[in-house]
Amino acid sequence: MAFWKFFFKNTGIFDMPRSIESVKSIKNILLIKNLENKGQVTDIYVSLDNNIDLYDLEKLCESVGWVRRPIKKVKTAIDNSFLIVSLFCEQNKKKRLIGFARVTSDSAFNATIWDVVIHPEFQGKGLGKALMNQTIKHLRYADISTITLFADPNVVSFYRSLGFITDPDGVKGMFWYPL
Amino acid sequence: MAFWKFFFKNTGIFDMPRSIESVKSIKNILLIKNLENKGQVTDIYVSLDNNIDLYDLEKLCESVGWVRRPIKKVKTAIDNSFLIVSLFCEQNKKKRLIGFARVTSDSAFNATIWDVVIHPEFQGKGLGKALMNQTIKHLRYADISTITLFADPNVVSFYRSLGFITDPDGVKGMFWYPL
Repeated sequence: MAFWKFFFKNTGIFDMPRSIESVKSIKNILLIKNLENKGQVTDIYVSLDNNIDLYDLEKLCESVGWVRRPIKKVKTAIDNSFLIVSLFCEQNKKKRLIGFARVTSDSAFNATIWDVVIHPEFQGKGLGKALMNQTIKHLRYADISTITLFADPNVVSFYRSLGFITDPDGVKGMFWYPL
Repeated sequence: MAFWKFFFKNTGIFDMPRSIESVKSIKNILLIKNLENKGQVTDIYVSLDNNIDLYDLEKLCESVGWVRRPIKKVKTAIDNSFLIVSLFCEQNKKKRLIGFARVTSDSAFNATIWDVVIHPEFQGKGLGKALMNQTIKHLRYADISTITLFADPNVVSFYRSLGFITDPDGVKGMFWYPL
């Protein structure tokens, strides 16, 4: 079955608008059945549960070369994120974290997506797109109208393919760092 | 007394790092004494209290031509903002809201500043700069390392003058809007 056909067929539970909180209570939804990866076949699950293993998360971030962050601060960030979206696969009857994104928001108008990551072993299989589409879908449920992010140069075209635009009407993303 | 000299002299209470919550409990700090405005002299106060009059806020936003927003949604946004910074002056023994900014954050790594506004009657007097410096100061207290915002083209140079940079290392601000 084609990916998107499967995707919509199996996430019908999400089709009615509901609050993020009520969606959060639904854990580990099957997102992709029988994904082929290096000759092995695995199912991919999506979860909005923010009670994730922080060491698994840091391991995932390390796999793409991000610098290690204090685990206590990571916990604070997770606890104060509006939305956490994780992708898991099942390996040796254990769940393995293979994708992650989180969102800060005022719960009303604006949201910003941070820390989007797919494990290198699982890249190039449409999982980044699936992860982002899940993220956008849930933000739309919450009636958030402006979804923003800051994209590294090498992923700008990826986000463009999902409908994100750079500098609309000349609006510029700006950063302030401590000296 | 020069503005900055006065600013630092009178906000000494903020000089020791403390949590945003403990700073929030200190309300209406005198920021600028004897600001001259259209032949009148007024004092300017800064407040981190998020219990602000929502109608005053919408009136302020209307004064700079922003579209009216549902008041209930504005309340949700305020309640779920990490930091609210307001500027007031005293007129006829009443406090008048003349400046505003708010911040979403994960309380750990990242913050995004939204809805920065100074009433047109009070523009061109350094109040935008004072408002933003207060905002940055409190985010630094909270040990937030990455402070971001999305700037309209006409205010990019203003934010540059405060140390904000556009597209660092090619990182692009991107937006997704519902179709």
